[in-house]
Amino acid sequence: MKNPPIFDLSRQAARSLDATDELRHFRDKFFTPDPDLIYMDGNSLGRLPLRTAGCLEEIVHQEWGTRLIRSWGEGWYDAPVRIGEKIARLVGADSGQVIMSDSTSVNLFKLVLSALALRPDRSKIVTDDFNFPSDLYILQGCIQLLGGRCLLQVVPSQDRIQPDLAALYAAIDEDTALVTLAHVAFKSGYMYDAAAIARRAHAVGALILWDLSHSAGSVPVELDAWEADLAIGCTYKYLNGGPGAPAFLYVRQSLQNDALSPIWGWFGDAAPFKFDLEYAPAIGIRRFLIGTPPILSMLAIEPGVDLLLEAGLDRLRRKSVALTSYLIDLFDASLAPLGFELGTPRQAEQRGSHVSIRHPEGYRIDRALIEEMNVLPDFREPDNIRLGLVPLYTSFEDIYEAVDRIRRIVIETRYLHFPQSKLSVT
Amino acid sequence: MKNPPIFDLSRQAARSLDATDELRHFRDKFFTPDPDLIYMDGNSLGRLPLRTAGCLEEIVHQEWGTRLIRSWGEGWYDAPVRIGEKIARLVGADSGQVIMSDSTSVNLFKLVLSALALRPDRSKIVTDDFNFPSDLYILQGCIQLLGGRCLLQVVPSQDRIQPDLAALYAAIDEDTALVTLAHVAFKSGYMYDAAAIARRAHAVGALILWDLSHSAGSVPVELDAWEADLAIGCTYKYLNGGPGAPAFLYVRQSLQNDALSPIWGWFGDAAPFKFDLEYAPAIGIRRFLIGTPPILSMLAIEPGVDLLLEAGLDRLRRKSVALTSYLIDLFDASLAPLGFELGTPRQAEQRGSHVSIRHPEGYRIDRALIEEMNVLPDFREPDNIRLGLVPLYTSFEDIYEAVDRIRRIVIETRYLHFPQSKLSVT
Repeated sequence: MKNPPIFDLSRQAARSLDATDELRHFRDKFFTPDPDLIYMDGNSLGRLPLRTAGCLEEIVHQEWGTRLIRSWGEGWYDAPVRIGEKIARLVGADSGQVIMSDSTSVNLFKLVLSALALRPDRSKIVTDDFNFPSDLYILQGCIQLLGGRCLLQVVPSQDRIQPDLAALYAAIDEDTALVTLAHVAFKSGYMYDAAAIARRAHAVGALILWDLSHSAGSVPVELDAWEADLAIGCTYKYLNGGPGAPAFLYVRQSLQNDALSPIWGWFGDAAPFKFDLEYAPAIGIRRFLIGTPPILSMLAIEPGVDLLLEAGLDRLRRKSVALTSYLIDLFDASLAPLGFELGTPRQAEQRGSHVSIRHPEGYRIDRALIEEMNVLPDFREPDNIRLGLVPLYTSFEDIYEAVDRIRRIVIETRYLHFPQSKLSVT
Repeated sequence: MKNPPIFDLSRQAARSLDATDELRHFRDKFFTPDPDLIYMDGNSLGRLPLRTAGCLEEIVHQEWGTRLIRSWGEGWYDAPVRIGEKIARLVGADSGQVIMSDSTSVNLFKLVLSALALRPDRSKIVTDDFNFPSDLYILQGCIQLLGGRCLLQVVPSQDRIQPDLAALYAAIDEDTALVTLAHVAFKSGYMYDAAAIARRAHAVGALILWDLSHSAGSVPVELDAWEADLAIGCTYKYLNGGPGAPAFLYVRQSLQNDALSPIWGWFGDAAPFKFDLEYAPAIGIRRFLIGTPPILSMLAIEPGVDLLLEAGLDRLRRKSVALTSYLIDLFDASLAPLGFELGTPRQAEQRGSHVSIRHPEGYRIDRALIEEMNVLPDFREPDNIRLGLVPLYTSFEDIYEAVDRIRRIVIETRYLHFPQSKLSVT
């Protein structure tokens, strides 16, 4: 997949791209009360779908308020499976392998310990430093909990854009129980060749677990075709499920009856309402559930997922590539000359749906964007401004405008009066 | 505390009790679209506070829809602590010891493994069969995970109303790392003498963990005064936090810096937004957080908790005792002669806020109540109809009406056409 060449970098050209965008009508399906706001942080928190607001009103008054406890039998109890089945279609998984549960971190904990129990004679978990720190923390906790039975190898990168694949491949050896990586790296937007890494893991008998938090809903994910074993992902980024919405997990069908969650929850019991005193895990993916799910946050996920399914993954990916390519073209023309460095792969097939731009004054530029220019990007230490481009609602003109506002901040040195504090809270 | 004697069991008398009820105006603060519905299941899912519906509208449109990612710095990030501090006032805990996180089951998992790590030379967890099966499952999973280092002793009861306290005390010995019990038993409503059991546990050096799911918000809970070590509880019953709303956990101040969650989540890190590659637990109660919390479900808890704080725990307990006592008086007069057996302690100081009534045809009577009489109780195998009485919104006339409808079902044998299936889904 090549970046389409864009020669005209005028606002008018951006508008023309929007006018012929096959997904343009999806933008109207989101709540956009401030038309001047340039929202570039859909990779941290997706926008509110209008439908979700309507559904929540109904869920609160009708389901909770009126039907009360009866709603458990009228859709709530089945929601983790029902919504999981929809997300399965976004991540290339056949039925019966995806379920909604807990947070991404709790799901990682469950699946890592399940995987280690499936490989009792092996002692190593392999990951790299492009993985989410939150995932590394969970892995470190698992190692600690197992009291020295396992060790964690975090392959260091030599580069800020690409992981060290040679070192990663070398680390995956006969002693490796599990390889776990973020499919799209949160820092640079680098996207791994998931099928190739699965082949490498399987060649030595290791299992592979993908964190899809930065990929589900924005890039092609084919868990079954990749021969993935396990996966987790959040729903509040490109899936537009709402702040902190429950996460999903995937366990390959053929592993399900051998794998067992270390947390034996009553929603994962074979007969939760029988109230037996002894736990008996459900057959299939339900055994990975734990406690009563947070229904309001859970049900709020569904309308956003429906929008993605309506848009179709092919169209989403085409638009995502067009958006990131357009931004990179603008970057080269307008921002590179101002001291910015591109922090994202130039090859479309190696990147997800956000673009990182780096600048020594990145932190202060980010503050100026938020506080003076009505642009919401997101910032990662030390110098990384991430621009999340969401195929469903980011327009080419949004990107034009974002780059223009960034350019003005730097040219007019409008960032200088912001403090250089390095710890942001978004 | 004695049951107040009630001699007049007429509907008019129930209305008089309502007219002088000091909490009567709180009923108007809940959404009650069907005035004929007799809701006796607030101990499974609390009713919707009107305020919560209003707040959610604001949270969805203003916080998520308009402020977007900025809301993390404007109230979301602090919500687990802020709401935890309010619940602390309901459970007799000083500041800094209660936080909102995950589900009750996940919190139990975290605290049980934390406790076992604090007592590395001891091998036993003690509980009883009055505990929630969901809690027993978590305990069984912890035992399994630790691979034989610990064992679980579930003290059996000899009675359906009261646990076997002598056997429980005998089980708590020098090898006991942790005693964990449900403060109010879900089956019978029996309430333990928590301070006495803590003294017994501490006398032999064991830790004590309470599940407050059936007690917080309805009975006096004094975690600090009881010298409790750990506690968990859900928020969707008497706290009216909404279906599956996130749970709370309590860790006694003096244990916090030695106790460590086995699940190392980024929200529990000392500096989550620094994105360090190595986990460093936060000082204090925050270290028990894991992943990004489900904000809609989390924030929906707060208005219901505020209502309880406004009502005041003394008034809530007085009303609860009056409600359960009144129901027991009606039971003796109207239901005992029809073959019902009381499944709840008659001594007010030994019971929580629900009353269990047992009948050989309990399951079919329950179905008839729900499907033909517009009463929503809750049912537990094999014969246990639970009537949850919620001081904030259950009226004496509700109870009068519920008993009258139960009586009519039995007298008119209106349950006979329901099947005898034993597995309900509520």
